Amino acid sequence: MVSSPNTQIKPLSFSIQEDTQDVLLGNIPVQELVNTYGTPLYVLDEATLRGMLKAYKNAFASYPGPLEILFAAKANLSMGICALVQQEGFGIDVVSGGEYYTALQAKFPLEKLVFNGNNKTHDELELTIANGIGKISVDNFYELSLIDRIAKHHDKKVSILLRVTPGIECHTHDYIKTGLLDSKFGFPLSQLSSAIDKITQDYSETIDLIGLHAHIGSQIFETQPYQDLAEVMLNLCYNIREHYGMTLTHLNLGGGLGIAYQPSDDPLEVSVLAETMVSKLVDYANQISFPLPTLILEPGRSLIATSGVTLYTVGSIKTISELPKTYVAVDGGMGDNIRPALYGAVYSALIANKPNEPHNTSVTIAGKYCESGDILIRDFMAPESITSGDTLMVFGTGAYNYSMSSNYNRVPRPATVLVGHGKAQALVQRETYDDLIAHDLIPETLLTQVTS
Amino acid sequence: MVSSPNTQIKPLSFSIQEDTQDVLLGNIPVQELVNTYGTPLYVLDEATLRGMLKAYKNAFASYPGPLEILFAAKANLSMGICALVQQEGFGIDVVSGGEYYTALQAKFPLEKLVFNGNNKTHDELELTIANGIGKISVDNFYELSLIDRIAKHHDKKVSILLRVTPGIECHTHDYIKTGLLDSKFGFPLSQLSSAIDKITQDYSETIDLIGLHAHIGSQIFETQPYQDLAEVMLNLCYNIREHYGMTLTHLNLGGGLGIAYQPSDDPLEVSVLAETMVSKLVDYANQISFPLPTLILEPGRSLIATSGVTLYTVGSIKTISELPKTYVAVDGGMGDNIRPALYGAVYSALIANKPNEPHNTSVTIAGKYCESGDILIRDFMAPESITSGDTLMVFGTGAYNYSMSSNYNRVPRPATVLVGHGKAQALVQRETYDDLIAHDLIPETLLTQVTS
Repeated sequence: MVSSPNTQIKPLSFSIQEDTQDVLLGNIPVQELVNTYGTPLYVLDEATLRGMLKAYKNAFASYPGPLEILFAAKANLSMGICALVQQEGFGIDVVSGGEYYTALQAKFPLEKLVFNGNNKTHDELELTIANGIGKISVDNFYELSLIDRIAKHHDKKVSILLRVTPGIECHTHDYIKTGLLDSKFGFPLSQLSSAIDKITQDYSETIDLIGLHAHIGSQIFETQPYQDLAEVMLNLCYNIREHYGMTLTHLNLGGGLGIAYQPSDDPLEVSVLAETMVSKLVDYANQISFPLPTLILEPGRSLIATSGVTLYTVGSIKTISELPKTYVAVDGGMGDNIRPALYGAVYSALIANKPNEPHNTSVTIAGKYCESGDILIRDFMAPESITSGDTLMVFGTGAYNYSMSSNYNRVPRPATVLVGHGKAQALVQRETYDDLIAHDLIPETLLTQVTS
Repeated sequence: MVSSPNTQIKPLSFSIQEDTQDVLLGNIPVQELVNTYGTPLYVLDEATLRGMLKAYKNAFASYPGPLEILFAAKANLSMGICALVQQEGFGIDVVSGGEYYTALQAKFPLEKLVFNGNNKTHDELELTIANGIGKISVDNFYELSLIDRIAKHHDKKVSILLRVTPGIECHTHDYIKTGLLDSKFGFPLSQLSSAIDKITQDYSETIDLIGLHAHIGSQIFETQPYQDLAEVMLNLCYNIREHYGMTLTHLNLGGGLGIAYQPSDDPLEVSVLAETMVSKLVDYANQISFPLPTLILEPGRSLIATSGVTLYTVGSIKTISELPKTYVAVDGGMGDNIRPALYGAVYSALIANKPNEPHNTSVTIAGKYCESGDILIRDFMAPESITSGDTLMVFGTGAYNYSMSSNYNRVPRPATVLVGHGKAQALVQRETYDDLIAHDLIPETLLTQVTS
């Protein structure tokens, strides 16, 4: 069996040219990318990204009911990504007006968008309902009332799922665990019937309740939570049919499949996830005599993280002989990758211009941001010869790097380049210094000299 | 004695109009700001900001030697801020090409800029040296060699300080503690003489070593570390004179003065900090017969944090009766204020349209970002009547909120408005959805339909 990209650390097209010892991505020498686009640089490997999209499609093809797989935009969105996931037949899970707008401008089919989020604003709901949206996953009563009002105004009926917190525990970072009762997201199960009452009694002209949604967390390595989830959610559908005579037709079971950031990580193959979920859904639906719903999935990280690497140039190197300890500073850091500082995330990396030298010397990879916490990798095994000008390639940065990037220290954000078919093509252009000041204004009163 | 703004939680111009019970900032009703500029909105109170700038100047006026106070741009920079701090006679501590470029475009006097940072790139040094820069605080040997090469090319001589890690401990968050030996910043004391040798022997035509620099951390509440620092640094100057016959004329003792984020915080008055540092410097310089150097300071947070508030609109409210717990979601969050998630920072706040209602009901203020960790304030005491549409005013957000902001979830970043003299004036315009896609490109190959 071919392992799916999420279980590997390097992108599929990573290779080392024998004669030159150049590292290639999508058959392009990394040094060529560095020379053309500069660093820091986000690179996405098209083979890995399409490989993972296809792996999902193939793995879940065994589901006997209808299937809709959405790319979770919050992992990494740009108009080019919209176009690519559209080519592969995916929908998109958007969580804001800005993500929706990006898809809209990329001419993405709007009926394949699902709008998620714990606090969609009036303006965001207005934007999506006025222009059209496949489904809205509704989080709370306030949102139901907003949708009703806006839909009425536009004389539309909106298809919705109700997001619930099913109380499933999974082992992951506190910050990204979302399925438990104590969550800002979704309806507690105890309020589900009130929500259905409200919809059927007050909003039946504007809101069409077609299904349920849950997302239990992120970077999950086990099958059990997904089995539990499938059963809990089908049970909810069953109970709703019993109490309301209403047969829900859609079940969004979220995302959360983990990826390998380091060699010790052992994430699930997507085929294993699919077998687990599909057999549980089929068996349990059969057991309770419930018609198989349209299965909706919204993976993000597992679809795109492994396809991404970030290229940095090594700058200053500081050795503190008293400790001893060596800091190797690169030209990026917490502005382009906040995850080590925010979550304690650990990344694997390689000195890309010395791929065959033994990486056996422990150093600390520091960023260039003016903050002690700006450390990218704490114990990176580097070649002994590591020096200023070397290229650091950090793996697994395709998700939650660009999408969470900032202009901290007024550092322009990197470009994103897609490599594939022997070509490199920019999906996102590098910011310039002029971009940084484009929104700045100096009021008149600040231009006169003050004598104090 | 008037207490300096950094010891208070609310901006100086905060008031409540008796008849209408409107909260005013700079004499402008907060609801007017909300209506004109929308939310989330960063507001800077000019009275507080100028008050704190003047408090620094007045407090350190007792220093008998020359004095240069720099605003640490990384706390919150825009062209308008450059203009305002220039009016008050401050310099600016910049840590990147982008911060330098902002000051350059704001026509800030370049001789009053100091360039800091652990990994200044060649391009950044080229930009600053070619256009002109007051001083560069040099962090490492690699940087010395870059400066030499660039200065030679431009036929310039660059005034520098050497940044050292003086080994001073202070009680603060791990991430923002920078004076210890194990730091990515600066020269360990053991390497200082090698650095001076290198400069005097190899770089004497391009580099003019005029002083030393240390920055011991951030959000510091004690005087002792500053006393220790003053003594250690003067001692270094003394030893350098003994060994090299070179009398350094500048001493940059960094920043780090804390502010009150919550009522229980008890930061130093800037006058107390000044008395402590000045008396130590004067006494110790006298004791070792060393001429008083030009004292350079680089406060950031303490100058600007208290002047800033963020205004949010309350959206969905979710009560989980089983716990019991109430989540109140606002229309911003970790995209405009990463500090609660990143550092566990705790903020004070007020429901600004109900300032006189007792705030006695515990709720959790959640952001709108699709992540469980996006919680702004964990135990906010809110009015019992808190409801969708209310305005939340979070205090102390003038530093490290806008400067660290991201477009996570593709949410446009807020505007920054300066209020003062009965006027509100935008310093930074709100981003639009079109700004979010301005750098996106869709390569041709992604526009053709793929049949898979």
